[in-house]
Amino acid sequence: MTTPPPQAGPQSLALAGLEGPIGLVGLGLIGGSLGLDLQRCGLEVHALVHRAGTAERARQRGLAQVVDTDAAVLAGCRLVVLALPLDRLLDPSPSLLAALPPEAVVTDVGSVKAPVLQRWRGLHPRFVASHPMAGSAEAGVEAGRADLFRGRPWVATPEAGGDLAALAAVQALAEAVGACWLTCDAAAHDRAVALISHLPVLASAALLLAAERGAAGGPPEWHLPALARALASSGFADTTRVGGGNPELGVLMARCNREAVAEALAGYRHCLDGLEQLLTAEDWPGLEEELGRCRQLRPEFL
Amino acid sequence: MTTPPPQAGPQSLALAGLEGPIGLVGLGLIGGSLGLDLQRCGLEVHALVHRAGTAERARQRGLAQVVDTDAAVLAGCRLVVLALPLDRLLDPSPSLLAALPPEAVVTDVGSVKAPVLQRWRGLHPRFVASHPMAGSAEAGVEAGRADLFRGRPWVATPEAGGDLAALAAVQALAEAVGACWLTCDAAAHDRAVALISHLPVLASAALLLAAERGAAGGPPEWHLPALARALASSGFADTTRVGGGNPELGVLMARCNREAVAEALAGYRHCLDGLEQLLTAEDWPGLEEELGRCRQLRPEFL
Repeated sequence: MTTPPPQAGPQSLALAGLEGPIGLVGLGLIGGSLGLDLQRCGLEVHALVHRAGTAERARQRGLAQVVDTDAAVLAGCRLVVLALPLDRLLDPSPSLLAALPPEAVVTDVGSVKAPVLQRWRGLHPRFVASHPMAGSAEAGVEAGRADLFRGRPWVATPEAGGDLAALAAVQALAEAVGACWLTCDAAAHDRAVALISHLPVLASAALLLAAERGAAGGPPEWHLPALARALASSGFADTTRVGGGNPELGVLMARCNREAVAEALAGYRHCLDGLEQLLTAEDWPGLEEELGRCRQLRPEFL
Repeated sequence: MTTPPPQAGPQSLALAGLEGPIGLVGLGLIGGSLGLDLQRCGLEVHALVHRAGTAERARQRGLAQVVDTDAAVLAGCRLVVLALPLDRLLDPSPSLLAALPPEAVVTDVGSVKAPVLQRWRGLHPRFVASHPMAGSAEAGVEAGRADLFRGRPWVATPEAGGDLAALAAVQALAEAVGACWLTCDAAAHDRAVALISHLPVLASAALLLAAERGAAGGPPEWHLPALARALASSGFADTTRVGGGNPELGVLMARCNREAVAEALAGYRHCLDGLEQLLTAEDWPGLEEELGRCRQLRPEFL
């Protein structure tokens, strides 16, 4: 894993041998934000979108210089970013595949890397799997905004013997938008995001379900469901934010990273059981020690 | 459960038959914030603190008009708020008990109500158990700030046949600082806070432990612990905030609300098992339905 500082402007894209337009496939949160940042770097951006209405709105918002629903818009692009949801990325349309210039560097932004690499390895000779770790609750053509990637990690998962020039081009792109470049093994990436991104969605969702079902269990005169709702404060709001998010995204992550998420869930259950045993045994010094470790650990993840 | 709107000023305290100083025992986040707000309402505040250094700093901050380490400072108070940590509240010093005027209304701010009620029922004739749901990560004499309670719930858990004038006085106090008054059964309160406050601490702590232990399990060349730390983003930060908080507070809540927390944990494990079964069975429509319910549920708790 390497972590050079965020850096660069349009020069570094030229240095990596990139001239000509950058292609974007999809102008949602990630694609739209990239379009804004890359244009600000002085680069020409051509974008392919699915629907005519999206194209119109993207043009109004200035997300790219050229926006079209015809894949021919990617002709001549030296680097194409597939900013698609995981399901569409794993099942690309024949017209998209036919339109990708063979000499272009192609990368993606999917939050799971091993299945993407497995699928795309044979589909394009210069494919580089990558994942900018930037998100927000918003989605769609209205979501893109400048500086989404500044200071955020952008991870690539290159394979041994891969195209180093293609990798350098994606690195130059990431650094042009201010991201912090990292590379790692695809399986390591997928296990790490299972632990810090996909598991928290399920753990957080279960809190909402438990609060709802637990509160339903009191005597009717207690008004427990209304009481739990009235008393929930900022701690509950924070802890349940990712669990109350987009269900389609949650399912895509679980589906595309099933084994790593299952492993993370098993580990989580083990840790939860440990805390529960301390509670049952009324081992308060032991519980304080574990919570003390948590307090020490958290800043290391921020 | 009743929820009148937040309201009132010094008049309502007078209406409830309260004249003379308000006593505060403890000037941490809750006590200090009350001191600031009550003085702003034109009320005289007398405070008892444990250490001379705290008293000096509290005077500098203007948290009360009179601050002392001698319990005699409470003489003449018509209403005394015990703003103490749960352990000290459940094991009050003989000097404090001796100094509480028998005719004064006495209330507390503890986050668990049944054990407090059980302990204090016989200790003071006009005790009212209550819990302002206002918090922050800060603690100690520097933490108090104006308007901490504005718009937040303040729950009392009166007993059948209790002192209605004492209850009205605590309500007037809560409304004077802008809180939203509620009353409910003590056991219902404790079950509700187990679900929406104490369980989330343990579920959140277990995420930190699972991320740490899971990441330690990869091949050394993966650098998984460093990778998990580098990739953790705002979702992980939010979901682990309460789990990485004060360990002493976490233990106090678990210890004083053990049965309700154990029940909440069992319910949580059941919900988590349900999500895990959907994952294992690759029942993606089922998982999407559950996550969709979570998305619907969350706004009801905010």
